[in-house]
Amino acid sequence: MDSADCTHGLFIIPLRLDDEIQPGDRLVDKLLQALANHQLQLMHGDILVVKHKIVSKAEGQLVELDKVKPSASSRAWARRYGVDARTTELALAHSKRIVRRERGVLITETKHGFVCANSGVDVSNVDGGRRALLLPDDPDRSAAKMHREIKKRLQLYIPVIITDTFGRPWREGLTEAAIGIAGMKAIHDYRGRNDPHGYPLRVSLEAVADELACAAGLVCSKLARAPACIVRGFRYHAVRGSARELIRPAANDLFY
Amino acid sequence: MDSADCTHGLFIIPLRLDDEIQPGDRLVDKLLQALANHQLQLMHGDILVVKHKIVSKAEGQLVELDKVKPSASSRAWARRYGVDARTTELALAHSKRIVRRERGVLITETKHGFVCANSGVDVSNVDGGRRALLLPDDPDRSAAKMHREIKKRLQLYIPVIITDTFGRPWREGLTEAAIGIAGMKAIHDYRGRNDPHGYPLRVSLEAVADELACAAGLVCSKLARAPACIVRGFRYHAVRGSARELIRPAANDLFY
Repeated sequence: MDSADCTHGLFIIPLRLDDEIQPGDRLVDKLLQALANHQLQLMHGDILVVKHKIVSKAEGQLVELDKVKPSASSRAWARRYGVDARTTELALAHSKRIVRRERGVLITETKHGFVCANSGVDVSNVDGGRRALLLPDDPDRSAAKMHREIKKRLQLYIPVIITDTFGRPWREGLTEAAIGIAGMKAIHDYRGRNDPHGYPLRVSLEAVADELACAAGLVCSKLARAPACIVRGFRYHAVRGSARELIRPAANDLFY
Repeated sequence: MDSADCTHGLFIIPLRLDDEIQPGDRLVDKLLQALANHQLQLMHGDILVVKHKIVSKAEGQLVELDKVKPSASSRAWARRYGVDARTTELALAHSKRIVRRERGVLITETKHGFVCANSGVDVSNVDGGRRALLLPDDPDRSAAKMHREIKKRLQLYIPVIITDTFGRPWREGLTEAAIGIAGMKAIHDYRGRNDPHGYPLRVSLEAVADELACAAGLVCSKLARAPACIVRGFRYHAVRGSARELIRPAANDLFY
């Protein structure tokens, strides 16, 4: 396969960072430096997909667990299921609704509207468990900031997707989902379009941002230091963009 | 980006078919012919991802809608929500459980164990709506057959994933999901592994087959004739494989 063939498909190029991101770091600087270190260049048409972990860390979305005072209810729940009461407390504090709280699993709706385990609060692999990492305060805003910064630095329009890892009802295993978007539409709408045979398309709304997040998940390995990647060759629709597009209004949801 | 860089990431190469697949067609022949027509070659390490539509069609999983006699209940439901009673009837006939039946949306568990709309029955873009397309009878078996056939023809071990397009609770838009697998593990298990800093990994079960299905969805365009693709560069775990691995047992599901 030569590079000419590549252009007909999609490339997904992992971006390895040499250092751990620290609160206050300028994330775009670090990513551009990593690109340069690996002889990679952002190109027109590329999409940047970034795990929320490094965004949250750069933004200082960290909580000292020792400072969290769990309620009696969180302590009882944590004791019963062998989980950390402080994490439960944080998850509840960062939720606007409990979706399910059963068998040691706490599924909440975050203030952003995402439905996920423990409001996305991540403890186990942050600083040896001393601190918890929260979701970015406003992941769309974080993505927009990176998108603007790249445009300013490189004079390139590069959509940015920030991802987290979510479970799903009915299916085992976790997959990536888009939680912040800037510069592209999250959903492609094929309503009113026909397939190559002229028949109306059944599948009319495709959550391309989530599919891009999943594709990124395949190269942003859990075991390597690749918390970001470039997706090259996907024809996105350039708009301001928002991950809110992916959130189903409660009134339309059969699993509210 | 030259081809040397490509090798560090993932390629996803769409595979366009010149003809519509017909019942009785030998699917692997058609796919290998399409590869040859586009000067593409399967290589060691490649994964073949195929939309179930062409698998079902080749296997003759088609039902003449005129021969379906909807029950009074299906007719009432269809009338109320402006859907086709015959599709509703077929969906019920191919389900083992109704998960939700509200507001014109019928979500069922198929006999295979997949939870999806209308038991995966597809009408709108099959033969102008005269026939309905069902899921393959046993998508794992279909994938295994293709996997064996490719090995026989090319002396290459190529995992095969068959996909369908599913909706999700809480999130708008549809994404691809793996419904049949042969030759690789569906889920990568990182339990007991540490991240590059030595901390235990939070996200320990990754549904890579679903992420591969989503990645494929990005190139298997709804508007082009690309019902299959090659994923190159993903380090899969070679095992017999099954999409059943992705089905959460009812006893562990909070949204049963």
